[in-house]
Amino acid sequence: MHRLALEKRTLGVSFLPSGKAQVLVWAPLAEQVELILNEGNTSVPLKKEDFGYWSVITDVIVPGDPYKFRLNDEQEFPDPASLFQATGVHGASQAFDETAFSWTDDAWQNLPLQDYVLYELHTGAFTQDGTFAGLEEKLDYLINLGVTAVELMPVAQFPGDRNWGYDGVFPFAVQDSYGGPEALQHLVNACHQKGLAVILDVVYNHFGPEGNYLGAYGPYFTNKYNTPWGPAINFDDAYCDGVRRYFTENLLMWFRDFHIDAVRLDAVHAIKDFSPVHILREMKEQVNQLMEITGRTHYMIVELDLNDTRFINPLEEQGYGMDAQWIDEFHHALRVTVTGENTGYYSDFTGICDLAKAYRDAYVYDGQFSPHRQKTFGVKAEDNPGQQFIVFTQNHDQVGNRMLGERLNELVSFEMQKLAAGAVILSPFLPMLWMGEEYAETSRFQYFVSHTDPDLLEAVRQGRKAEFAAFLAQGEAPDPMAEETFLSSKLQWELLEAEPHKTMHGYYKKLLKLRKEFPALKHLNRKCLEVQENEAHKTLMV
Amino acid sequence: MHRLALEKRTLGVSFLPSGKAQVLVWAPLAEQVELILNEGNTSVPLKKEDFGYWSVITDVIVPGDPYKFRLNDEQEFPDPASLFQATGVHGASQAFDETAFSWTDDAWQNLPLQDYVLYELHTGAFTQDGTFAGLEEKLDYLINLGVTAVELMPVAQFPGDRNWGYDGVFPFAVQDSYGGPEALQHLVNACHQKGLAVILDVVYNHFGPEGNYLGAYGPYFTNKYNTPWGPAINFDDAYCDGVRRYFTENLLMWFRDFHIDAVRLDAVHAIKDFSPVHILREMKEQVNQLMEITGRTHYMIVELDLNDTRFINPLEEQGYGMDAQWIDEFHHALRVTVTGENTGYYSDFTGICDLAKAYRDAYVYDGQFSPHRQKTFGVKAEDNPGQQFIVFTQNHDQVGNRMLGERLNELVSFEMQKLAAGAVILSPFLPMLWMGEEYAETSRFQYFVSHTDPDLLEAVRQGRKAEFAAFLAQGEAPDPMAEETFLSSKLQWELLEAEPHKTMHGYYKKLLKLRKEFPALKHLNRKCLEVQENEAHKTLMV
Repeated sequence: MHRLALEKRTLGVSFLPSGKAQVLVWAPLAEQVELILNEGNTSVPLKKEDFGYWSVITDVIVPGDPYKFRLNDEQEFPDPASLFQATGVHGASQAFDETAFSWTDDAWQNLPLQDYVLYELHTGAFTQDGTFAGLEEKLDYLINLGVTAVELMPVAQFPGDRNWGYDGVFPFAVQDSYGGPEALQHLVNACHQKGLAVILDVVYNHFGPEGNYLGAYGPYFTNKYNTPWGPAINFDDAYCDGVRRYFTENLLMWFRDFHIDAVRLDAVHAIKDFSPVHILREMKEQVNQLMEITGRTHYMIVELDLNDTRFINPLEEQGYGMDAQWIDEFHHALRVTVTGENTGYYSDFTGICDLAKAYRDAYVYDGQFSPHRQKTFGVKAEDNPGQQFIVFTQNHDQVGNRMLGERLNELVSFEMQKLAAGAVILSPFLPMLWMGEEYAETSRFQYFVSHTDPDLLEAVRQGRKAEFAAFLAQGEAPDPMAEETFLSSKLQWELLEAEPHKTMHGYYKKLLKLRKEFPALKHLNRKCLEVQENEAHKTLMV
Repeated sequence: MHRLALEKRTLGVSFLPSGKAQVLVWAPLAEQVELILNEGNTSVPLKKEDFGYWSVITDVIVPGDPYKFRLNDEQEFPDPASLFQATGVHGASQAFDETAFSWTDDAWQNLPLQDYVLYELHTGAFTQDGTFAGLEEKLDYLINLGVTAVELMPVAQFPGDRNWGYDGVFPFAVQDSYGGPEALQHLVNACHQKGLAVILDVVYNHFGPEGNYLGAYGPYFTNKYNTPWGPAINFDDAYCDGVRRYFTENLLMWFRDFHIDAVRLDAVHAIKDFSPVHILREMKEQVNQLMEITGRTHYMIVELDLNDTRFINPLEEQGYGMDAQWIDEFHHALRVTVTGENTGYYSDFTGICDLAKAYRDAYVYDGQFSPHRQKTFGVKAEDNPGQQFIVFTQNHDQVGNRMLGERLNELVSFEMQKLAAGAVILSPFLPMLWMGEEYAETSRFQYFVSHTDPDLLEAVRQGRKAEFAAFLAQGEAPDPMAEETFLSSKLQWELLEAEPHKTMHGYYKKLLKLRKEFPALKHLNRKCLEVQENEAHKTLMV
């Protein structure tokens, strides 16, 4: 039987040293599976194996060949483990040898987590070019700024060529419009040669609404749980073994075959898993084994809307072993302090006292009643060091989920923005910048998609309008489908030469330099930290 | 604010030393709440407090008074924390002073868990009388048999007067047709005076389909999870604090005010809770505190369809701290060994090898692929002692969920039944008998209900027919609604005087005596146990 292998990819089409291809598909309810090439003119039957897997070793397919699978002698579908969808989510998969790249990063060693200074960016909007190649040209800029780790918003293939990335439907495939898998390998290699770590945003809690053919292959979803995106991904119901392996292989692939240093796992609170061993814990155990084999270090960082240390506690303490988590609460406390906003989830925060608590305890809610959530929320994180928490003045969500996509600098004064940046960069946590904030970029980051299904498009448009109906006074929500919405979200690099952007850029550089050079600021032990807040004067001394 | 108190009941109507009643209702979305007495002629407004509670202290209500609550000046409903529904689930609640009973069990001390020999019974079907008073008359019989703990199937108020108990809708109220709350206190007192422990079956994973008025009071349910019974009880969504407190108070009440020694928590795998602190763990922490205060000992035993030691591991090891769990797998392995059945969940078992594994490892599936579940199932339980596992040759489910409700002795020979009884009673686990098996009772235990809602009745009838459509050759499924189905499920005590029942009864007594007297058989450490199976000869040496 083909089992998950740490050393190499097993799902999908993989090339063996002999040059032959090993093909492996999980389709536990299928009666027949064939590999289809040459636009349907060549078909190779796969043999049924244990536990719903189908496989064949063949020499009819070589890297670059388009292929699909035909199920039950009926319909043809792209490969769930496709590495490249050269013609988009509905087209054929394209065979790719992920082991062929000539890496020159042997000397690279991942940074200690406490030295991470993160920079979140959207590949499409970061440069005019909107590709990995375009991004590569900016690496020196980032290094010069003082960033140590580039965090890419999801690059898994999504429908069309404009999307934040959370509508991905091929977790193993690298977005064609960004340059595909080889360009990603090239980018990571370049980062490593320059001393930058690479964090990849991966989505294991839902699939996008267009181009998801997984249902044809097997029970990837379960009705046991309801999520904002419909039925949950099946991590603990019947047939979950195949689904768990699928995502575990995916994670191992990014680390092993793309040399990714860390992943940012999207919204892991929406991964519903009551198994005795939570999928995140199982993944961590596998990654630990991979690191034993390769000698490289990899981190797992989670986006987590729960103040629950179970996720970040070590495996030995029955935790899931995640290395770090985003703490939105720090953001919310800071945001309310600088803008006074009080709607939605901001209503749980009052300002400087919450910020003081975040400095002291990481979690603001660690056992108190949350009016917004209408329940007691959180546990204490006193034993979790500062490097387990990622903080920011803004991220893609906090900016892009506003109706108009305004960045913080559009909402507060120049001086206030500087204060906020200082609060983050000099915190006893890991700071993360959102692309462009370092020079007070003025372009808004808006919600954009390029679905091709007209019904879906109309539904997204209407949904967006309804969501922001109460904000009509501020104008109309931009059309997510319009190319213009995407184009206007791109960074305007020319601003760097103008004021006040130049000054802000210099200020960020100085802050990051301070953090790097002063030992006290690199010390992420909150227990050595004194925090004094004064609500009346709205001051905070750290 | 009224908080959960360990020392006394707070929800519902409780009587103070002054004679006045303290009334507390959780209705977080209500605009107005009134206590209604005298068939609507007296109303006392409740005052809104924090966190959705409403309360008043009043002298207009005394024990025995019928009452309801009127919500929003509109409809009237019985009390969610009612102790007595003297006229059934749709009628008024009846005030009851749970502290008024004159206990005479001061000398009683709960038995060490390892000395538990359990006897599961259905109060209605155990005697002709079908009440707690009827049951009391049989206590000497049970003691003479060698039983040490009586386990009552659920007694929470259900619709009508015939029900297994899993359709309960008032977790705090004791079924009127069994004799109500005072009769239960009387029974427990009598058990304790005779040296018997009492286990109560409580259902915290669903409510019955008729007479459930909780929805009028608050968000007791959540759509986040789907269960076989519809939306899950809300243990982790918005407003869950009130729901968690409701069930925690319920558990504390049985222990504190009814002197229950242990609970058997129904199907805890269907309690969906992703909170940082699982509700079972939270309950255990509260029970530990209660035991500190009262000096009495109480156990929490769970029915659990998961081989997951997280539930039964100690709190210190991040477990939920449950004292013991039922292991259906031991039953299934034994059952397949003695009957050769192979459909449904029995298809995961082949016979004597599985039974040998159950003796050695408690869990049969502890990391293997389960064909019936279509996934890898279970973890190892090597550090969990034998007293954490309850075993049986049959229970109410294994008998009653058959179309015709046949007991094991109807399906296997007299000698085989004896062998099976020996396998359970001399096992390194806690043995449980199912009422009547000790004398090879011939009446079948069938599925019976007495809903009053005609649409629901018809649905149950049709559902039952459809469930057993494949078994038409064996005859027709008995009508769950017919009184005859209930009456014919009652024990026939006169059999005890006839053969072969008399012989079987003597045999069980001897087995239980052996278990009690031989130190080796009281030793519940599987690590001192040698098991040798021989599949060809179908023998097992322990």
